[in-house]
Amino acid sequence: MTEVRPLVLLDPHPRNNAMILRPDDRARLAALAEVVTVESGPVPDGVVDQCLPRVMAILGQTALPRERIERAPNLKAVFNVEGNFFQNVDYTACFARGIRVACAAPAFARPVAEFALAAALDLMRGITAADRAFRAGEEQYGWRGNLGRESLFGADVGIVGFGNIARVLVTLLVPFGCTVRAHDPWLPPAVMRDHNVLPASLDDLLESSKVVFVLAAPTSENGGLIGAAELSRLRDGAKIVLLSRAEVVDFGALAHALASGRIEAAIDVFPQEPLPAAHPLRTSGATLLSSHRAGGLDSALKLIGEMAVDDLALVLRGLPPVRLQSGHPETIGRQRSKPGLSEAPA
Amino acid sequence: MTEVRPLVLLDPHPRNNAMILRPDDRARLAALAEVVTVESGPVPDGVVDQCLPRVMAILGQTALPRERIERAPNLKAVFNVEGNFFQNVDYTACFARGIRVACAAPAFARPVAEFALAAALDLMRGITAADRAFRAGEEQYGWRGNLGRESLFGADVGIVGFGNIARVLVTLLVPFGCTVRAHDPWLPPAVMRDHNVLPASLDDLLESSKVVFVLAAPTSENGGLIGAAELSRLRDGAKIVLLSRAEVVDFGALAHALASGRIEAAIDVFPQEPLPAAHPLRTSGATLLSSHRAGGLDSALKLIGEMAVDDLALVLRGLPPVRLQSGHPETIGRQRSKPGLSEAPA
Amino acid sequence: MTEVRPLVLLDPHPRNNAMILRPDDRARLAALAEVVTVESGPVPDGVVDQCLPRVMAILGQTALPRERIERAPNLKAVFNVEGNFFQNVDYTACFARGIRVACAAPAFARPVAEFALAAALDLMRGITAADRAFRAGEEQYGWRGNLGRESLFGADVGIVGFGNIARVLVTLLVPFGCTVRAHDPWLPPAVMRDHNVLPASLDDLLESSKVVFVLAAPTSENGGLIGAAELSRLRDGAKIVLLSRAEVVDFGALAHALASGRIEAAIDVFPQEPLPAAHPLRTSGATLLSSHRAGGLDSALKLIGEMAVDDLALVLRGLPPVRLQSGHPETIGRQRSKPGLSEAPA
Amino acid sequence: MTEVRPLVLLDPHPRNNAMILRPDDRARLAALAEVVTVESGPVPDGVVDQCLPRVMAILGQTALPRERIERAPNLKAVFNVEGNFFQNVDYTACFARGIRVACAAPAFARPVAEFALAAALDLMRGITAADRAFRAGEEQYGWRGNLGRESLFGADVGIVGFGNIARVLVTLLVPFGCTVRAHDPWLPPAVMRDHNVLPASLDDLLESSKVVFVLAAPTSENGGLIGAAELSRLRDGAKIVLLSRAEVVDFGALAHALASGRIEAAIDVFPQEPLPAAHPLRTSGATLLSSHRAGGLDSALKLIGEMAVDDLALVLRGLPPVRLQSGHPETIGRQRSKPGLSEAPA
Repeated sequence: MTEVRPLVLLDPHPRNNAMILRPDDRARLAALAEVVTVESGPVPDGVVDQCLPRVMAILGQTALPRERIERAPNLKAVFNVEGNFFQNVDYTACFARGIRVACAAPAFARPVAEFALAAALDLMRGITAADRAFRAGEEQYGWRGNLGRESLFGADVGIVGFGNIARVLVTLLVPFGCTVRAHDPWLPPAVMRDHNVLPASLDDLLESSKVVFVLAAPTSENGGLIGAAELSRLRDGAKIVLLSRAEVVDFGALAHALASGRIEAAIDVFPQEPLPAAHPLRTSGATLLSSHRAGGLDSALKLIGEMAVDDLALVLRGLPPVRLQSGHPETIGRQRSKPGLSEAPA
Repeated sequence: MTEVRPLVLLDPHPRNNAMILRPDDRARLAALAEVVTVESGPVPDGVVDQCLPRVMAILGQTALPRERIERAPNLKAVFNVEGNFFQNVDYTACFARGIRVACAAPAFARPVAEFALAAALDLMRGITAADRAFRAGEEQYGWRGNLGRESLFGADVGIVGFGNIARVLVTLLVPFGCTVRAHDPWLPPAVMRDHNVLPASLDDLLESSKVVFVLAAPTSENGGLIGAAELSRLRDGAKIVLLSRAEVVDFGALAHALASGRIEAAIDVFPQEPLPAAHPLRTSGATLLSSHRAGGLDSALKLIGEMAVDDLALVLRGLPPVRLQSGHPETIGRQRSKPGLSEAPA
Repeated sequence: MTEVRPLVLLDPHPRNNAMILRPDDRARLAALAEVVTVESGPVPDGVVDQCLPRVMAILGQTALPRERIERAPNLKAVFNVEGNFFQNVDYTACFARGIRVACAAPAFARPVAEFALAAALDLMRGITAADRAFRAGEEQYGWRGNLGRESLFGADVGIVGFGNIARVLVTLLVPFGCTVRAHDPWLPPAVMRDHNVLPASLDDLLESSKVVFVLAAPTSENGGLIGAAELSRLRDGAKIVLLSRAEVVDFGALAHALASGRIEAAIDVFPQEPLPAAHPLRTSGATLLSSHRAGGLDSALKLIGEMAVDDLALVLRGLPPVRLQSGHPETIGRQRSKPGLSEAPA
Repeated sequence: MTEVRPLVLLDPHPRNNAMILRPDDRARLAALAEVVTVESGPVPDGVVDQCLPRVMAILGQTALPRERIERAPNLKAVFNVEGNFFQNVDYTACFARGIRVACAAPAFARPVAEFALAAALDLMRGITAADRAFRAGEEQYGWRGNLGRESLFGADVGIVGFGNIARVLVTLLVPFGCTVRAHDPWLPPAVMRDHNVLPASLDDLLESSKVVFVLAAPTSENGGLIGAAELSRLRDGAKIVLLSRAEVVDFGALAHALASGRIEAAIDVFPQEPLPAAHPLRTSGATLLSSHRAGGLDSALKLIGEMAVDDLALVLRGLPPVRLQSGHPETIGRQRSKPGLSEAPA
């Protein structure tokens, strides 16, 4: 008599297996379940369809319309290995069946929060700008090189979007003694207060802050949330750190404000990536440029696999997942993300 | 009958009064004492000499050989408004008389520690390098732009010189969960342990750390402390953050190691400032260049004045100073500092 | 034309409305919905049944068998106002319908964690015991009164059950520099590590710890988890702080170990409450006695109402609740709690 | 040719050598210097006098009038092994000679701060009082047992005397999110602000605080600092934690206020120790009684020796001591301490 092992479909495209799984996690996965996968590219439709009758969990962004879910009676978990939820899964059908749906956003919380702090310090202290001046032979020494520069210690700071990243960022800011305001329309004020953060309206936050971190995930509701009117509320010399998705900001208005020199920004995400070669931001003295690098460290990618295998082990034991971020029926349909540029090497 | 007010000589050259004193602190000073000063340049010798019989405190770096001290029977405090002690004061004579001697190093602890963290994050995450690539049209998006880059979270970190700056830096590192080692030959190991830091020999520290912060003030003992042999102990890809004084490192050996690409560095201090125009470091891809900017923020300079006035008020009440850093008879003669480039505007 | 407002059934028995709702939260609730309630005792069955066709949310522990849920087509949320889930609700039916199920456990996390720390300090430093000795005229002064007493600073500490309470407790222990181990069979080790806690087996934890906090909620699996064999693993002089439910420990074995004087304990929960008048623990010199007081502060009870109204407002806006603790389909049926003694005043 | 080793006089009476020196520190001391000591009682005058010509350091409270200091030309350090400075040393003569003078107060900072937190939690949560009620068979369960009790989370807290102990206490209070005020007439307000504490006048502090910690060391200026008028400023239900010395408070006024039941207190120090057998505080329901136990843990006593040997090693290397607390010429003469009851076992 043979034991029938649970079947797991591993389909991380546009990432690939080696990007997200350390050897030890790959071995743990193999010990937990029979794994169907391909080493490069998406798992072909025919293979997916063949797995459906037995599949217990899917790790990846496989398209799951209702008809596929109906043909997968043993399916208990769909674990996206990206940081957000795509709309190629019939989540309603999943929730009705009690199928666990989760994404890998928590794997990016630390690297993105770290990048946010680094970018804020860079703008406040003028670090990249001073290095550029130095290479141009135009450096100024001592206090002369610090004109207009300030410390983050004790500064007023604002955070738009109070999720995973923001909560890590708040811990990094603690020793700086900043006054931190946060705005998140999906959360009651007490949640911010529990993190020693002042809940604030968007307008108050923009008017009060020396540094504004834009960390809100894109939804059907927040496109262009920060437009020309909002940018005009910023104090002279304010800094914006834009890390989540370009769509949350009216990018043209932001580029215009940066060209005026009234504010500065660190930008990691762009409406079009790569940014067009002739885009004026490429020579902006008021901008710290970053090419969608805030989250995608190798260690973060490997953490996705570790979290997915940990949670898979829990689901197999009849326990709820705890490391990945479970999707909520109320909001999962409002997420707006297109696949990023984080595809696997050719 | 007129009350004789205490006399204070305010002689902050090469800084000037406006650089270090906010209007409120200037007013507090005037309320505490009769102030003799000049608005620009050093107080002339003749004026100094005239003050000696009555002077109660000197704020600045006025030369104080023994004969001047002997002519100043009321002198109770010599408060240097730089971050270190110059050897133009007969400190032995001061200590014998119970004259309080202090410098303004604590005013720079926060900005320098902040800069140290910013520089470490910059090197680990490749922030300035990626901005430069972006401006050259050579940026790589997502994980491709992060090859060889790492997070500071959980990294092994080493600190050479465990004084004011290091102790603030340790608090900034706490949320990153780093393993922090420190080396300081003037301190027993328990002092490090009390700050949750592992005491280490210099060799152990260099071999174990991903990031090495060089924060040791220059003394008669630590010139060239980190030379070619020490640099060779560093791991491939290690980062050095050099902030205190260039003399602590064999600068030629450091430039050589950077040219090899085996390590990276952030450098804020140079053996010669300005750095010669043709110096190869100016085009080093492995170096974050900073022109002696780590400490000299306007807010730090103003903090000097605030601290000096606070401590002066204490001394006038018969209490010990608590904000500036008191000099120790045992070590004050070993300090090696030349005046920096932080002079006042012309 | 009249707007039909959502209907909320407020049925907090054995608590009552005034215990859990501050006037401002009561007013917020009234502004959000039409509220059906009684001021004392449970809402009568007839009233409940009458509400079912329109009820949108239930705040309380109303019995909800399948037939009631079926008659409540608009029901979106069942918010228990106790710290755990009772088995008088057909949770399977709730989850199938997407009805949000939550309990008020987070309201108790801070007061219980605070009590846990206080109890640990009391046992380590002998505070209550010394007060008792003082009243008996038997106090010893200075070091003589501290024989056998120790500091919590740097101590090895173990936590059984790594949920809400444990995570707050860990933050309270941070400044003490303790080595903290935790055991929780429902969590992967990385969750503990993310909180700077060492994951440990129960045996390792018991053998290594100077103080053991028992915080695990009772389930169908952990009755008598800590029995005579486990207690025998404790070091001489170890302290147990028992706060969650008495059932997790073999209470007889614990009482026996305390009578031997080999270990000490703080006990807040008992198999039978009130503890029988003649129970030997009542005179135990090795025990700090507390009558189920760890969580039930007035401020915690009021927080329940605040959290419930906050989450109700979210649910009415089509958003997921964030302050109460959502029940998990996988584990909600394993919870074992009987109603406590926290009933309302007569 | 024999090397002349430095001579150290070890005279810790009323403590003894074994109380303050672990075997490893005793061995380190022996490796550093030739040690003259007696195992019990004070070192006899004759032995002291014989040592004077060669003695390099004295560890203990040996009487050192001017004439003895004059006969000790090699004396470089006088390290008291108590927590405060006695007036049996001619400190003026020491300072004039550059002799390092220090006491062991830092060894007690952690245990006393820990005790302060424990006592505050005890009073706020009613822990000892509830244990007493339980033993009397009068315990109330759940919220009924918590009437009038509150959480320390978010409470207003005041600290009188902002020295070693207060600074550790502040770190213990951080996770409780308290608003902390401090009053210390010897410090400028910025020192408190640097520790995230609000500087306050004594009256403001008393009127604003739910818990008042009295940690001020006794001086010639602060006897009876908190008298009947000050106690009357306290809010109803306020808690006092009295840990430094009874003299700072008008003890009769305090006992009177406690008898009224309007406030509660934890008291570790008394004007007369032992407290007279019939003193009404011995039966006070509003008082947590502690017999001078806050600091004198075995680990704290051993830390004294460790610190003294560490600092002795520094002094022998020509470096300043860093672990013990150096005395200040301005204030050392104002300290008022009588020897405590911490004497060695007979």
